[in-house]
Amino acid sequence: MGSDVVEEGDDVLLYLDERRQFLVKVVKGKELHTHKGYVKADDIIGKRYGGVVTSHMGAKFYILRPTLKDYVRKFARRTQIIYPKDMGIIVSFSNIGPGSIVVEAGTGSGALTCFLAYHVRPSGKVYSYEIRQEFLERARENIKRAGLEKYVELKLKDIAEGIDERDVDAVVLDMPTPWLVVPQAYAALKGCGFFVSFSPTINQVERTVVELRRNGFVDVRAVEVIVRSWQAEEGRMRPRTLDISHTGYLVFARKALLEEER
Amino acid sequence: MGSDVVEEGDDVLLYLDERRQFLVKVVKGKELHTHKGYVKADDIIGKRYGGVVTSHMGAKFYILRPTLKDYVRKFARRTQIIYPKDMGIIVSFSNIGPGSIVVEAGTGSGALTCFLAYHVRPSGKVYSYEIRQEFLERARENIKRAGLEKYVELKLKDIAEGIDERDVDAVVLDMPTPWLVVPQAYAALKGCGFFVSFSPTINQVERTVVELRRNGFVDVRAVEVIVRSWQAEEGRMRPRTLDISHTGYLVFARKALLEEER
Amino acid sequence: MGSDVVEEGDDVLLYLDERRQFLVKVVKGKELHTHKGYVKADDIIGKRYGGVVTSHMGAKFYILRPTLKDYVRKFARRTQIIYPKDMGIIVSFSNIGPGSIVVEAGTGSGALTCFLAYHVRPSGKVYSYEIRQEFLERARENIKRAGLEKYVELKLKDIAEGIDERDVDAVVLDMPTPWLVVPQAYAALKGCGFFVSFSPTINQVERTVVELRRNGFVDVRAVEVIVRSWQAEEGRMRPRTLDISHTGYLVFARKALLEEER
Amino acid sequence: MGSDVVEEGDDVLLYLDERRQFLVKVVKGKELHTHKGYVKADDIIGKRYGGVVTSHMGAKFYILRPTLKDYVRKFARRTQIIYPKDMGIIVSFSNIGPGSIVVEAGTGSGALTCFLAYHVRPSGKVYSYEIRQEFLERARENIKRAGLEKYVELKLKDIAEGIDERDVDAVVLDMPTPWLVVPQAYAALKGCGFFVSFSPTINQVERTVVELRRNGFVDVRAVEVIVRSWQAEEGRMRPRTLDISHTGYLVFARKALLEEER
Repeated sequence: MGSDVVEEGDDVLLYLDERRQFLVKVVKGKELHTHKGYVKADDIIGKRYGGVVTSHMGAKFYILRPTLKDYVRKFARRTQIIYPKDMGIIVSFSNIGPGSIVVEAGTGSGALTCFLAYHVRPSGKVYSYEIRQEFLERARENIKRAGLEKYVELKLKDIAEGIDERDVDAVVLDMPTPWLVVPQAYAALKGCGFFVSFSPTINQVERTVVELRRNGFVDVRAVEVIVRSWQAEEGRMRPRTLDISHTGYLVFARKALLEEER
Repeated sequence: MGSDVVEEGDDVLLYLDERRQFLVKVVKGKELHTHKGYVKADDIIGKRYGGVVTSHMGAKFYILRPTLKDYVRKFARRTQIIYPKDMGIIVSFSNIGPGSIVVEAGTGSGALTCFLAYHVRPSGKVYSYEIRQEFLERARENIKRAGLEKYVELKLKDIAEGIDERDVDAVVLDMPTPWLVVPQAYAALKGCGFFVSFSPTINQVERTVVELRRNGFVDVRAVEVIVRSWQAEEGRMRPRTLDISHTGYLVFARKALLEEER
Repeated sequence: MGSDVVEEGDDVLLYLDERRQFLVKVVKGKELHTHKGYVKADDIIGKRYGGVVTSHMGAKFYILRPTLKDYVRKFARRTQIIYPKDMGIIVSFSNIGPGSIVVEAGTGSGALTCFLAYHVRPSGKVYSYEIRQEFLERARENIKRAGLEKYVELKLKDIAEGIDERDVDAVVLDMPTPWLVVPQAYAALKGCGFFVSFSPTINQVERTVVELRRNGFVDVRAVEVIVRSWQAEEGRMRPRTLDISHTGYLVFARKALLEEER
Repeated sequence: MGSDVVEEGDDVLLYLDERRQFLVKVVKGKELHTHKGYVKADDIIGKRYGGVVTSHMGAKFYILRPTLKDYVRKFARRTQIIYPKDMGIIVSFSNIGPGSIVVEAGTGSGALTCFLAYHVRPSGKVYSYEIRQEFLERARENIKRAGLEKYVELKLKDIAEGIDERDVDAVVLDMPTPWLVVPQAYAALKGCGFFVSFSPTINQVERTVVELRRNGFVDVRAVEVIVRSWQAEEGRMRPRTLDISHTGYLVFARKALLEEER
């Protein structure tokens, strides 16, 4: 994942503390702006990752190599509701890894697309469906910025009208009506393939699990993933007072073959 | 990840329901034993994954392709405390993916080793340290069964005595005293590399975060991952009555460079 | 709540440890049976509460004065789903205290009835509706055993057919269809009075809050109460591995006056 | 708890919605100020509780009778960390009710004092210790405002220097070092009496449970109470996105008699 030294064109994460971190692109001659003053790009080109740079206001930033999580946070708009915690569980529970063929909808900002693409490299592929042109364009830029465009095919198409791909390993849905896509997902998946959906409300989960059981899926599971952050100070260990309480629920299911296909 | 059809030598998951699923190896002429009767291996060789087979007691099993989670459950002894939920968050929060070089300790049953190896394929590698010979041997078998031995190097060595590797992307510790390994992890990691530890008690977390902050790590985070399972029945949506309440805490940190290294 | 010394006729809690505690009635000349042998009633009459007695099998029991929680646990059958945690929040959030007039349904085993009666003493009253004769009889015994019969009036009647009382402070429902009782509760409550319901599923909560908002209630709140128990051992602080994950949801609302009543 | 009609001198809760509610005292001829304009006191005197009043800016407020929870919220400063949820569990788990004799420290704003006093009425009493004179004065006013002064005795004294009362039913501590008060609590409690402490950090819990076990207490329990609020809208049921994740832990224990006292 790149050299140990910051090069022109790199994205770097200027890290002050947990709340103040800035993902910026290093362009020769430019100033990289943060809420705590700017840093000269030329001051960090050639520095080692993990080192320190000082802004013109005196703030000391660690120069970190951005992770997928950092990109996700950057791409996410306020409307973005799928979090790295949910992405990690999606990948873990549905066996997505190098070589997996994954269909996704909707693309949105491309945050989940990037996460999936990162994990299916180098021989896998993510086919991502989106019906809003402007989202698709923004996602394309984001995916390119993360360097993952080789592993993604973006499609301006309503997934409810059908999935073009066949024998895919997983279908991952982050859209308001996942239950409408259950038959399409069934058709696209290989035997044992995973259906995954993310939904903020229990009503969506209810409709989705009902459709899955009616349409040949087994091992249907609905879970909520809660990540509690701790204020970890010596002698004063405690969870944070305020935290994200809820993002959404995840539904998982596996395709069983219909009688005629066995 | 293999053919669509069950072949001799495959591992298959015979799935009855959420509580009754059996991971068995298909060997010609053998009977595959479950708590609900046996299935003849010859009856499933050549069948498609996702299909159904009936045991001699009349139980109808779905023939599923085992996922990493299924292997993890199989390998895990009662003492095993790191769960797929924690593994998913480890990979997600520390950017482990194809090509990553990861150091792990202790190997234990090899469950986490397999999970990491699966995700760093095909160009990455997991170096796993274990001090108990008998665990190492069992782990070796488990890793081989999951077909991941090419991506793992097992080491019979106490990681507290030093890590042989350098410039690694992540050090992942599932051992009783992770705080004792902080300097060794620092030496092994590249700039920005991730330290990760899993510990059942808060006292372990406390000692670990203190050592990390004293030894050049930044972005130190302690979290607890809770996955709540729902009984998802139409008209009666509710979380399960009894569930796993706690497995352990995860600590994450990133290596900053010391003054002399910048 | 009684003398410092065990008297004939008292209920006592023989406490061995968290899992083994026995609520027994002290009757002269009798043996009090536990899973760890019997204790002679005569051996504890006259002993001070907080003291120790030894069973014929050598188990050392603390002689504790039973609390309401101990009675609740004793009365509760397997089907009992309302827990002391939920009872505590009901009382706290709906201002039930000495002098409160409370209507309850269904009575069930009488566990919640006892809890409410205990807290409205000495000048308040609990009117409890139940349609199953055999439950009502059992509840009557339980309430008498807890010494709270003066503060309770049991009614063999379907609360959905109407509440006889008026100007009550709170209506507390632990029944499968609380939404059907919303108009009756409105009629029975004084202005600002509290509606409270306990339901295991979200579907019940949904129907109930919809009815409440349609029927003149304000400050409608739905919450879930989770009590996590810790294994609190020095140097090894951690939540229990397995715990109750879910019992039910609580809905609270307050009666606003209709235009014609203001 | 007072008449059905608002009288001069009453406190009323002007309720707009969950986030906007104002506890004000009704004084003839005065304007009652809220963020949404003022209401004339004379406009609500004689109105029924549960009715509606309009502010000069046109906001329609429900006129609600304040509950203890409303007082608690009003009294609580930013530093206040004990919540109604924790108060409800304290009362429920330690059997505090009408007639109970309770010792409390520190008094703080008097919020927990009020809650306890409300529940021990009319024959019980709360003895509350506080070392900061200015807090004691503020608490005195708050308790008087809630009409509970008859049931409380405030003491300007460090509880660690000894508890004056004997044979009390419960000692409830909301102070930074509860473990220092364990022997004093033991001396003050009757046999079987309850020790309760509230602490934000696990380190405090750890020290407290160790001292309790060393000093003759049994049935030692540490719990965390989590109340999750739901956004309960028809067809879109889900927990709130952001919520209070942590306030503190509760420790409960019961006094066993020492050998010489039995």
